[in-house]
Amino acid sequence: MIVTKETFVLKTPFALESGVVLPNVVIAFEQYGDLNAEKSNLILITHGITGSSHAAGKYAESNRSAGYWDDLIGPGKAFDTDLWCVVAPNVLGGCRGSTGPLSIDPSTNQPYGPNFPEITIRDMVFVQQRFVSECFDVVRVACVSGGSMGGFQALEWAASLPDFVQSIIPVATAITPNPRAIAYNHCARTAIQLDPSFAHGYYEQHGVYPDNGLALARMIGTISYLSEASFQNMFHDGTSPLPSQDANGNHNFLVEGYLNDEGNKLVHRFDANTYLLISKALDTHALDRNRGSLEQVFASISCPILALGFTSDSLFPIRQTLEIAERAESAGNMNARAVCIDSDYGHDAFLVHQTLMSGPIRDFLTSVYALL
Amino acid sequence: MIVTKETFVLKTPFALESGVVLPNVVIAFEQYGDLNAEKSNLILITHGITGSSHAAGKYAESNRSAGYWDDLIGPGKAFDTDLWCVVAPNVLGGCRGSTGPLSIDPSTNQPYGPNFPEITIRDMVFVQQRFVSECFDVVRVACVSGGSMGGFQALEWAASLPDFVQSIIPVATAITPNPRAIAYNHCARTAIQLDPSFAHGYYEQHGVYPDNGLALARMIGTISYLSEASFQNMFHDGTSPLPSQDANGNHNFLVEGYLNDEGNKLVHRFDANTYLLISKALDTHALDRNRGSLEQVFASISCPILALGFTSDSLFPIRQTLEIAERAESAGNMNARAVCIDSDYGHDAFLVHQTLMSGPIRDFLTSVYALL
Repeated sequence: MIVTKETFVLKTPFALESGVVLPNVVIAFEQYGDLNAEKSNLILITHGITGSSHAAGKYAESNRSAGYWDDLIGPGKAFDTDLWCVVAPNVLGGCRGSTGPLSIDPSTNQPYGPNFPEITIRDMVFVQQRFVSECFDVVRVACVSGGSMGGFQALEWAASLPDFVQSIIPVATAITPNPRAIAYNHCARTAIQLDPSFAHGYYEQHGVYPDNGLALARMIGTISYLSEASFQNMFHDGTSPLPSQDANGNHNFLVEGYLNDEGNKLVHRFDANTYLLISKALDTHALDRNRGSLEQVFASISCPILALGFTSDSLFPIRQTLEIAERAESAGNMNARAVCIDSDYGHDAFLVHQTLMSGPIRDFLTSVYALL
Repeated sequence: MIVTKETFVLKTPFALESGVVLPNVVIAFEQYGDLNAEKSNLILITHGITGSSHAAGKYAESNRSAGYWDDLIGPGKAFDTDLWCVVAPNVLGGCRGSTGPLSIDPSTNQPYGPNFPEITIRDMVFVQQRFVSECFDVVRVACVSGGSMGGFQALEWAASLPDFVQSIIPVATAITPNPRAIAYNHCARTAIQLDPSFAHGYYEQHGVYPDNGLALARMIGTISYLSEASFQNMFHDGTSPLPSQDANGNHNFLVEGYLNDEGNKLVHRFDANTYLLISKALDTHALDRNRGSLEQVFASISCPILALGFTSDSLFPIRQTLEIAERAESAGNMNARAVCIDSDYGHDAFLVHQTLMSGPIRDFLTSVYALL
């Protein structure tokens, strides 16, 4: 499937939850499949902290890898593009084409950089609603699905826009972040700020980038994305004999090289200020903010919910996935359920074990399709 | 119990496993209880990565806190100082009084700093054997016990010096590090090296210290020392409403403040080059190095072993504790057993749940005492 990244500019300024107004909001997105005549078959795919709009397909046949959910999205796949119009936007505040810290602030003609206003998951969701309304002229979406921070967005859609969303599939996610997940993000942010090239966020002006800090942020994150069993399965080098020495006489383990590679790969596709901004949006997310209690929030959500979780997720433990369905059921939602997928991979199972997710998603969407 | 930190200088130079010779080795230590006339009641306590010789007691009544195993060591306690002469040295390479990167290199009259030679857990153990032989004139120790890296040393004692040690109690530890434990240490080392004040390790000469990098290293380590449940129990701030903002308008969570405090506390008592050195010694530890196989190692260990582990340890998972006893039993050791202590605290349970450790240690030492 050859795909194209497109952009859409919101027709009017967007007011953030904080009250700050962004005069000009661009959203990068990809579309897989066609909108039907009734405009009733749009599925929105929301991405994780360092994700992008590239959820499926390739930009060219020669691309080495496809979008991150390519095993789930396409003709005949779980998100069947013969039936559904699947749309994947880059989040507000992102650095992969949407308006974010790398964008030019029209009031200064300089990149926003560290002055990009603080945003929330709720802001991301309301921008997405504006985007799908204005770009596709739909009055509702059939489903919102995403993993990790993408799941935060899916749940926030259901709470913020109950009349606009017909179902959600949050994956490997939680109603709210947990303290250890915040701890990892805090260490990652501290790493970025420790890099002398970070320069309080004004590195764009200096043209020297905090690559080492951003790489370390990713390395720290990577520990949280894999289970202990995954580390054990991937690296059998924690044991004797002493690992080989490099040219400097240092002993380097395979796992160290892997983390370095993960860090360096992110540096080529991500931005430090954006990491700070988005990770803070993730940490400060609260589904019940200004809505009384979680009980009241879930009482307001009547749409079908499929919460998918992985037994070995150590970032958002499986109990947090189960809690989504439990709270929905307690609030009287008859169409909410959680599916625990047995995997020892860890949090990133939502990217690696797509084949295990296909069946539950396909079954769920079949029932949603019957409602259209 | 009022205690004193003392120092001992090895009588002759010490040759490291690498072949490098340290001309002058000082070991800082503390002693609790008296050596008996037969010199048969010495128990050696070995410490973890950022530990010290201060295992029990206070230096003055006005001290706010006591040594790290004060609930285990003292008159009438599990390591009963009415019976045992308990000796706790700071490891070779440490920065709390023993020879290490902060010591003066006699060949340059400057601190060793980054030029302190690479050391191994085995080096630490052979230095300890020299220390107890020369300082206390003993021909064997009744027991070696320590948690985490201290447990590495206890196991290495049994493998390196089978005629010199009568029993070991490794706690919250493993035969070898696991890849995820190495991953945490690699991120911690990267954090130190990212600090511009690190200056390739020559910060002593500049008088400006890589405090931020060392603090971040500790913050990363702290995540590995606590279980997810501990984070949940300690910080209920991962939920709505938005946490209060600080003077800069930033949202700071309790867990972020806790990590910052843990980082800043370490900076006041530890040294960056030492963190690099010791953590690498930990990661490169291999009980079977130059000894054939682990089967051969355990065939050579006939002393009683009590391996204590905690069910929630996510740094050295409980299966690694069980493996110690399993391998010993497989090799025909009739006096090896593992005790799994039920705790949801995580790795640092070995510091926090001393009362849960007392019974098994007391029972084990009673049987060892009968052998004296």
